[in-house]
Amino acid sequence: MREADKPIGIFDSGIGGLTVFKEIRKALPQERLIYLGDTARFPYGTKSPATVVRYALENTAFLLKHQVKMLVVACNTASAYSLEMIQERFPLPAIGVVDPGAKAAVAVSKGKIGIIGTEGTISSQAYPKAIRRLNPSLAVLSQACPLLVSLVEEGWLDNEIATKVTEHYLADLRKGNIDTLVLGCTHYPLLKATFRKVVGEGVRIIDSAEATSGEVVSLLEENGLRRMEGEGESHIYVTYLPQRFERVGRLFLHEDLPPVHQVDLV
Amino acid sequence: MREADKPIGIFDSGIGGLTVFKEIRKALPQERLIYLGDTARFPYGTKSPATVVRYALENTAFLLKHQVKMLVVACNTASAYSLEMIQERFPLPAIGVVDPGAKAAVAVSKGKIGIIGTEGTISSQAYPKAIRRLNPSLAVLSQACPLLVSLVEEGWLDNEIATKVTEHYLADLRKGNIDTLVLGCTHYPLLKATFRKVVGEGVRIIDSAEATSGEVVSLLEENGLRRMEGEGESHIYVTYLPQRFERVGRLFLHEDLPPVHQVDLV
Repeated sequence: MREADKPIGIFDSGIGGLTVFKEIRKALPQERLIYLGDTARFPYGTKSPATVVRYALENTAFLLKHQVKMLVVACNTASAYSLEMIQERFPLPAIGVVDPGAKAAVAVSKGKIGIIGTEGTISSQAYPKAIRRLNPSLAVLSQACPLLVSLVEEGWLDNEIATKVTEHYLADLRKGNIDTLVLGCTHYPLLKATFRKVVGEGVRIIDSAEATSGEVVSLLEENGLRRMEGEGESHIYVTYLPQRFERVGRLFLHEDLPPVHQVDLV
Repeated sequence: MREADKPIGIFDSGIGGLTVFKEIRKALPQERLIYLGDTARFPYGTKSPATVVRYALENTAFLLKHQVKMLVVACNTASAYSLEMIQERFPLPAIGVVDPGAKAAVAVSKGKIGIIGTEGTISSQAYPKAIRRLNPSLAVLSQACPLLVSLVEEGWLDNEIATKVTEHYLADLRKGNIDTLVLGCTHYPLLKATFRKVVGEGVRIIDSAEATSGEVVSLLEENGLRRMEGEGESHIYVTYLPQRFERVGRLFLHEDLPPVHQVDLV
């Protein structure tokens, strides 16, 4: 098989990475995609860094068996803790979701960036560190939003409860006058309309999933790996409860998923 | 050490079991208690039954090393999947939270019982099965409430959001005219005031934690293991993030926790 015809591997701790999968599929309709959702060990956000690294290496090994040409770590916690180790250990281009999101925020912010994410992502400080590396003069405010993942998986995306919960979490960031809001969790793009309503039109909203798909395009082109012809295809694997994944996944893709297969990693 | 002076071991997938710990401590102030919260592997509700059994056996082995005289599985999912195996494998009295909750509900219901819990507990059908064994003529309605655990851990126990979310989840049970509501998740007793407001005074609310502590008293007495003198003491171990456990644990106990120690089980 030609290198360019090989698939792109994407993994996440569960279902959230489908927002990244969706953007990559939109930007690169001719690519073959393999998505692995490690639903048996979800969530990663409350695991120790050493455990997250071990899971991430196992996920990567699974995708490598499927001959992937490139790897996307579509999980904020796994990106924060394991991307460097993956890049060191495996001989293929690999990117996460944190750096693309940080880069996109730095490109538009005039002074103060707000970051929202799970408790794990916020306490890792991955976004503030990435932003500081790019532009140390920007201020960063962070807010963990533990309830939002369950809210999305419940399908409550723009009802009264979603609005109330979002208003609560964003209160301090709004008082802090952020000009840019980074959605630092792969579940959050589904709440974008609610975030927009709560922060108003004056705040730029950065969707890490979109930012990441742009970086995937660049990285493929830099490495001469972009597939320019043929039809795209998608395969989805999960480590537990494929039926639940198919059901909740429809919220993320706005359409039926390709068949979801269960695999054992360990 | 005399058998009666040995501690009671309690384990949960995380912090929710503190509601059971609290009731046991209240009912049995002279007992020594050891609590293990397996926070590194929380939640169990989305893990496969085989995985939950493995975790439960590892937790039990840890508590046995601390010479416990009795075991309380203070987690609904672990009770549903692993209690029988624990009772077969280990030579000590062991109880879970499902049977006491079911028994208490059957004792008061005139016809229709509502069960709420996590997705894992509801899909295990553990409560309907236990209720049917006790009284096959009672009807059971079940409702998974995925958001409530995060709501409790966030400390939103009786605000507007808690009320709206609870109203939503209980709508079908109320339409179904349940006369008894079983709180089938160890987190839910913290929302009791909100449940009461939503279901009104006509519905009996069964708190599995309270029901379990009553059964613990009986089981100790039956086995001649109740400690009748001396001062009680408590030790708490978790497998990850002891500081978070101390902080959120205050919501559960309404007071500071004894020092929380981190341990590695595997």
